[in-house]
Amino acid sequence: MPAIDLNADLGESYGIWSLGDDDAMLDVVTSANVACGFHGGDPSTLRRVCHAAAERNVTIGAQVSYPDLLGFGRRFIDIDPGELRDAVLYQLGALDGFAQVAGTGVKYLKPHGALYHACVTHHDQAEAVATAAHEFDPSMAILGAPGSPLLAVADALGMEAVPEAFADRAYLGDGRLVPRSEPDAVITDPSIVAARAVAVATERRVTAIDGTHVEVHARSICVHGDTNGAVELARAVRAGLEMAEVGVHAFAL
Amino acid sequence: MPAIDLNADLGESYGIWSLGDDDAMLDVVTSANVACGFHGGDPSTLRRVCHAAAERNVTIGAQVSYPDLLGFGRRFIDIDPGELRDAVLYQLGALDGFAQVAGTGVKYLKPHGALYHACVTHHDQAEAVATAAHEFDPSMAILGAPGSPLLAVADALGMEAVPEAFADRAYLGDGRLVPRSEPDAVITDPSIVAARAVAVATERRVTAIDGTHVEVHARSICVHGDTNGAVELARAVRAGLEMAEVGVHAFAL
Amino acid sequence: MPAIDLNADLGESYGIWSLGDDDAMLDVVTSANVACGFHGGDPSTLRRVCHAAAERNVTIGAQVSYPDLLGFGRRFIDIDPGELRDAVLYQLGALDGFAQVAGTGVKYLKPHGALYHACVTHHDQAEAVATAAHEFDPSMAILGAPGSPLLAVADALGMEAVPEAFADRAYLGDGRLVPRSEPDAVITDPSIVAARAVAVATERRVTAIDGTHVEVHARSICVHGDTNGAVELARAVRAGLEMAEVGVHAFAL
Amino acid sequence: MPAIDLNADLGESYGIWSLGDDDAMLDVVTSANVACGFHGGDPSTLRRVCHAAAERNVTIGAQVSYPDLLGFGRRFIDIDPGELRDAVLYQLGALDGFAQVAGTGVKYLKPHGALYHACVTHHDQAEAVATAAHEFDPSMAILGAPGSPLLAVADALGMEAVPEAFADRAYLGDGRLVPRSEPDAVITDPSIVAARAVAVATERRVTAIDGTHVEVHARSICVHGDTNGAVELARAVRAGLEMAEVGVHAFAL
Repeated sequence: MPAIDLNADLGESYGIWSLGDDDAMLDVVTSANVACGFHGGDPSTLRRVCHAAAERNVTIGAQVSYPDLLGFGRRFIDIDPGELRDAVLYQLGALDGFAQVAGTGVKYLKPHGALYHACVTHHDQAEAVATAAHEFDPSMAILGAPGSPLLAVADALGMEAVPEAFADRAYLGDGRLVPRSEPDAVITDPSIVAARAVAVATERRVTAIDGTHVEVHARSICVHGDTNGAVELARAVRAGLEMAEVGVHAFAL
Repeated sequence: MPAIDLNADLGESYGIWSLGDDDAMLDVVTSANVACGFHGGDPSTLRRVCHAAAERNVTIGAQVSYPDLLGFGRRFIDIDPGELRDAVLYQLGALDGFAQVAGTGVKYLKPHGALYHACVTHHDQAEAVATAAHEFDPSMAILGAPGSPLLAVADALGMEAVPEAFADRAYLGDGRLVPRSEPDAVITDPSIVAARAVAVATERRVTAIDGTHVEVHARSICVHGDTNGAVELARAVRAGLEMAEVGVHAFAL
Repeated sequence: MPAIDLNADLGESYGIWSLGDDDAMLDVVTSANVACGFHGGDPSTLRRVCHAAAERNVTIGAQVSYPDLLGFGRRFIDIDPGELRDAVLYQLGALDGFAQVAGTGVKYLKPHGALYHACVTHHDQAEAVATAAHEFDPSMAILGAPGSPLLAVADALGMEAVPEAFADRAYLGDGRLVPRSEPDAVITDPSIVAARAVAVATERRVTAIDGTHVEVHARSICVHGDTNGAVELARAVRAGLEMAEVGVHAFAL
Repeated sequence: MPAIDLNADLGESYGIWSLGDDDAMLDVVTSANVACGFHGGDPSTLRRVCHAAAERNVTIGAQVSYPDLLGFGRRFIDIDPGELRDAVLYQLGALDGFAQVAGTGVKYLKPHGALYHACVTHHDQAEAVATAAHEFDPSMAILGAPGSPLLAVADALGMEAVPEAFADRAYLGDGRLVPRSEPDAVITDPSIVAARAVAVATERRVTAIDGTHVEVHARSICVHGDTNGAVELARAVRAGLEMAEVGVHAFAL
C-alpha cells in the first residue's frame, strides 16, 4: 500500500497575535512543523502546540528560522554559517524541551521561509542547518526540498533526508515549482489538489503546467493552515488520500 | 573534610558586545551559571562557554532570566506565572542543546538578576521557575538564596535545593545581605573575602556587620567575574579555600 | 453644545500578525492612539495608520508602552524612571516621523497597557512619561486616567491634561472602574453603552454599579476596536452622541 | 584653505554592554554618526551622545541600520524596499527626538554596516534609504560611498550628497578599497594615516596599493573609535590636518 506523510507549519502565533488554526490542522496532518520562537511561536504557544500534537500522535518537527520576528522569517539574511548553525541548535533545544514535557521529542527539522529557500541555493547555509541537526540528534530526520543541498548534506551525514511536495502548487516541466508571481502558480480547487496529492503518493509524479508528466519523489506533502480555506483544502487532501487507500503516516516516529 | 562549590555568572556577552572574562573564571569556579539568551548570551556564546566549561569539568547550570536584553534582566517584570514557567523551560532547553553537544548537560538552574530577587519575594514566580526545572529534569538542582520560596518549592518537588552565600557581601545580624545602597555593603579586600569564604565553608557562619556571628548555611559561594579585579578576587577565594583544605567541588555532576 | 472626543488604540499589528480593524475605527474616532513599535506597531503599520488618520482628519497621538512585544505591553516592568523617560522619547520621535510625513504630527500621548496603570499608581514612572512628552513638545496634550499622577504632572508642567472615561465599563460608587475580574465589569449592550457615553458628555456623570450617580469628568471617551463587535459598539457610541447633539471633536488639533 | 569633515560611528553601546569611547571621539570629530537602536544604541545612550555632541558643536547624523542587534547590522538582509524605507524613517524620527532635546537635530544620514554596502550594490535598497531621508527632511545631507547609488539618488532628489574616504584603508588603482581580507588592507601607522588624510583633503588623491595615484573626491573622512588605538589614530588624523592648515569643519550645520 502506498503511503505518504502530511506536514504543516504550526505554532506561529506570537503573544496576543494569533495565526492559523493549530488544532484544526493537527486533526489533519501527521507531522507538525512547530515554530521555535525566531519567526513566530512564543514559549507558551510552543507548549500548547506540542501538547496538542502529542495528544494526537502527530510527530513534532522543528520549524527553524532566521531570527526575524518582524519579517516572519521571510527575509534572506546573509548570516555567518557558524552563527546560523548555533541559532538552529538553540531553536532545536528550546522546542525539544516542550516536546519532551509533552511526552515526546523533536523528531525532524524543516527550515522555514527564506531559510528554506537558502537551503536550496546556499550550500554553506544548508550545511550549517544540517550540521546543527546532526549535532543535536543524528537520528532525527530532515524535511526539505527534493534535490536540495540540505537533503544532500543530511544524507551524507547519515541522516534521514525526506523530500516533500506541494499538492497545491503548479510544477514546471523540469520539476521546479511555478513561481508564486506567475498566474496559476497556486491551485485552489480542493478536488484537484487532492487528486494531485494522490498522484504524488501513488505514481510519484504530477502533471506539469506544460502538460507533461514530471516525476516528484516525495515522502511528505506540505499543506498550509493559515486560512479557513486552507484548512478545508488540507482536509480534502487527507480525505482524498484515504479514499485512494493511501496510508497517511508520519515519516518519523 | 569540609567542601564547598564556587559559582559564577558566565556567557553574558551578546554579539559584538563582550562582558567579563569567561575563560579566566572557568579556571576558578566549579559551577558555571551560563546565560541563556534572555538577558545576554547569544547562541554562539552559549556554544563557546559550554565547550570551555566541559573541557574543564566545570558543571553547567542555566542562568535563566526575564526576557530583557536592554535591562540585562535587572528589571522586575510582572509576568504571568504560566508564561514565566514557559519562558524558563524555553531557556533550559536552548542551553541544554549546547551543553549536550559539549558532552554534558544542564545540571542545575539559577535565576538571574531581578528574577533571582523575585524568587525570594514572589511565591508565584518562584514556583513557576521551580516547576519549569522540575518538568525539564526532576534530577536537576536549584541554586538560590537560602530560605527563599524558590528553594522551598524545589525541595517540596523532591529536587536538590542548594543555598548559596556571598563572600564579598556584608551580612546583617539577621542573616540578610546589607543592601548595596549602604556603605560597606561590598567587601573588596581579597584576603578578607577569602577568609569569609573559608568561614562559610568550615564554620557555616560569618561575622555580621554588627559584630555578631550569623549562621550561613550555604553549599555554594557566588563569585563575580565582570571586572579584572573580580577575577583576582575569585582567585583569592579559591586559593584561600584550598589553603584551608576545604574541598572545592561542584554540588552537581 | 456639549462636546467630547472619542479615542481608540490603533496600529497594533506587527509584521504578518494583524490586530483590529484600523480603517473601520478611524471612521468612528476623533483621536487615534497609534502604537509606536514597543508593544505592537511595526514601521510600515505606523506609516499606513498615520496616513489613514491624516486623510480623515483624525488627530494622531502616541500610544507609548514598555518595551514588551511578547507581553503586548501588559506586564508591569520596574524600569528606572530615567530609562523609561528615554524609552518614551524614542517612541515619540519614531511615531512623529510618520505623522509628519502624513502631513500632521503627534499631538498627544497616551500610555498603553501596564504603563497606563503605572501612571496611576507609580508617581516616578508617571513623571518620567510626562517629562518625555514635555521635552518632546510642551504643546502636546496628555491623555490618561482622571486624577492620575500622570495628569497631575502634565498639568504642573503646563501641558494640557485630558481625562478620559470608559463608556463600556461599569463604575464603582467612588469613581473607580469595576475590576475586569468582576461580573458586570464590562457592558456590551450598544444602546446602554451609547447612553452612558451621552451621560458622560452631557451630564458629567454615570450611574455606578451600586445605583448611585458618580461624577466623571472626562474630555474623551475610550472605545475599543479589537473585535468586530467592538467596532459596532464604537459606531453605536458615535451615533448616540450625534443623535444627542453632542459635538464629537478631537481635544487636540 | 582646503577643508574636510571628520566622521565617526558613535552611540553603539547597548544596555550594560559598552562599545567605544564616545566622549573621546567627540573631541576629535566634526560629525557624529549616532546609532539609532537597530544595531546598537539604546534610548539612554542616544540621549547621552546627542547631548555630548551638541555640547561640542559636533553635528549629529543618523547611523541607520537593518534591524539586527545580534549581528550588529553587519548581516545583509533582503528586506522589501518599502519596509526598509519605513525602518529608516522610524530610526530618523527616534534619533531626532534626542537631537532636538539636546538643542539641535539630525542633519544627515549615514547607513551602517551591511546597509552601507547594500547602498553601493543594491539600487532598490539605496533608493529606499534616500527616500526615507528625503521624506523626513529634504534639507538633510546623505553621507556615503563615492559613486554609490545612494549618493546618486540623493543628488537626484536634490539633497546634499557627501562622499567620504577612509584614511586608514588601502585603495586599489581603480579607486575601490582593498578588501579587508587582504593583507595591507588596513593602515595602522598614525603618521601615514594622517598624511593620507591630508592628501585627500588637499590633493583629492591618495597613493594606491599599486603605487599609482588614485583620485578620491571626499568631503569627509571616516575615523573609527572602537579601540584605544583607534582613538589615538583619530587624534593623529585631526592633528595632521590642522598642522597642514586644513580646515576641519562639519559638512552640515
